[in-house]
Amino acid sequence: MRSGEFATILRLKERFRSDAAAGVLLGIGDDAAVLEAKPFDKLVWTIDEQVEKTHFRRDLAGWIDIGWRSFMAAASDLAAMGAEPWCALSALSLPADFEDEDLDALTRGQHAAAVRLGTSIVGGNLTRGELVTVTTTLLGTTDRPMLRSAARAGDEIWIAGRLGLAATGLFALERGLIDERLDGVKEAWLRPWARIGEGRHAAKRARALVDVSDGLAQDVGHMAEASQVRAVFDEKALRAHANRTGLDTVAELIALDPLEVMLGGGEDYVLAAASDVPLEGFWRAGVFAEGQGVALKRTGGRERELFELGYDHFRSRL
Amino acid sequence: MRSGEFATILRLKERFRSDAAAGVLLGIGDDAAVLEAKPFDKLVWTIDEQVEKTHFRRDLAGWIDIGWRSFMAAASDLAAMGAEPWCALSALSLPADFEDEDLDALTRGQHAAAVRLGTSIVGGNLTRGELVTVTTTLLGTTDRPMLRSAARAGDEIWIAGRLGLAATGLFALERGLIDERLDGVKEAWLRPWARIGEGRHAAKRARALVDVSDGLAQDVGHMAEASQVRAVFDEKALRAHANRTGLDTVAELIALDPLEVMLGGGEDYVLAAASDVPLEGFWRAGVFAEGQGVALKRTGGRERELFELGYDHFRSRL
Repeated sequence: MRSGEFATILRLKERFRSDAAAGVLLGIGDDAAVLEAKPFDKLVWTIDEQVEKTHFRRDLAGWIDIGWRSFMAAASDLAAMGAEPWCALSALSLPADFEDEDLDALTRGQHAAAVRLGTSIVGGNLTRGELVTVTTTLLGTTDRPMLRSAARAGDEIWIAGRLGLAATGLFALERGLIDERLDGVKEAWLRPWARIGEGRHAAKRARALVDVSDGLAQDVGHMAEASQVRAVFDEKALRAHANRTGLDTVAELIALDPLEVMLGGGEDYVLAAASDVPLEGFWRAGVFAEGQGVALKRTGGRERELFELGYDHFRSRL
Repeated sequence: MRSGEFATILRLKERFRSDAAAGVLLGIGDDAAVLEAKPFDKLVWTIDEQVEKTHFRRDLAGWIDIGWRSFMAAASDLAAMGAEPWCALSALSLPADFEDEDLDALTRGQHAAAVRLGTSIVGGNLTRGELVTVTTTLLGTTDRPMLRSAARAGDEIWIAGRLGLAATGLFALERGLIDERLDGVKEAWLRPWARIGEGRHAAKRARALVDVSDGLAQDVGHMAEASQVRAVFDEKALRAHANRTGLDTVAELIALDPLEVMLGGGEDYVLAAASDVPLEGFWRAGVFAEGQGVALKRTGGRERELFELGYDHFRSRL
């Protein structure tokens, strides 16, 4: 970082101070933030860390994208609990030669994401480290926290959001593919959305909820396991979705199988719900059944077991 | 990490599940933790990140020490607000070849520190990264958050804890000095304490409070600046303290100036309060006066301005 510490902290204060959330008694500038506890809601609390070379590379994404993505990734855990974001802290680890303008871009991305979700960053920590890490902890509120363990056999699998685009976009970015028809999927990876509204809707009507960050098969697999049921995706429904979103065409351009990226690719931050009633803004992707494991029901009717799909870099919740 | 992800998460659940704090409705195992909001207290919220090669080196400290230190460092921010810890989340970034037994030791250290403070780790995040990072976010409660900006000219500087030992211990560790007379100062660096009880006491009687992680002169300097007063340390009081704690003898052994390590060394996590009444368990180290800056009043009565002391690796609160 080129500026001294003091100047840096002042700039960050300036950026984040304008939009302190309701109930925040003290924001950036002391040893900790101070909040007025809300007596009527349950608090939902999450932390997510994005690490250079594991979650992002400087040459593939701008710092503003990295700030945005890291904030949305953390907020997606609140969406997955059916909660509404309240406020956030951010811990940044930065190399000594990190440029001021890059820090400005990074925090601008965090700030923009926070504003879009109606929340704010009320404090944090800044430290030196050889690799950039962006850690976000968020508090949210909800009357009804949505667990992953409450799915029942007979529920259907409902998805909010477009599936497989981010993984396709990351593939294109990593290989340096330039084609304007790929811009949409690149954008899906660079600027994901935490689906707070859909999560709040699911909290009213659905039974169980998760977000998909490590791959549909894997994350819904966790849900099935926690609920002691079997998840069966419907190939026909997935292919129809790929057709609606244009994923099939884009994937074909770069020789990817749309079904594979939908089942295995993460970081779209879609929500997956178990519900016995249709959910507004969600599309149906399969069913939960008696048994265990995760399977794909082929167009012909046969079920294929799904193993080891998903980008497992052992990133997971404790 | 040698075990698979699933086995690792299970082990961590097992470690942390036994001692969930009151008000924790859902701990480790879903997308986020769920808490019952406490209507009668204010919430105090902090985050701290400890990064390999910046805050610790594998060859100088055991993983159990690193776990303990990182938890106490974060909790010290709550002490500095006069708050009592409620519960915590932990985010770990670990290299792919990190050994199971090292992870066990690291989390054992976190857990031991949490238990000693009467709090618990209720969730977190686990990710891969080339460097080990240990990030801790803590929620605490208090009726009266202690700000750093409330010191007044005429208040005295009161310290809870022994000063300069941790910096002396780190110096000895870094140089590989082996002498049993150095064991105590090494222990001070390896196993610091967040002074929660003293912070709670200060919240009843003192005016302003900080913890000292970056050096006494620097951290009390921040307090003086935020309060628009001048901090003047008393050399005689500091030297008497060094004599009581044995720091003077130990520092002499390794050719350190005890006054320099007391003013410049951080990571003892002592508390520094501004108060116009004596505080139980604190010792008097100087006064706040009209003016600005940080000075040392020499034994002869002359004041020397203190600049640039303290281990500033631009680690600071946002």
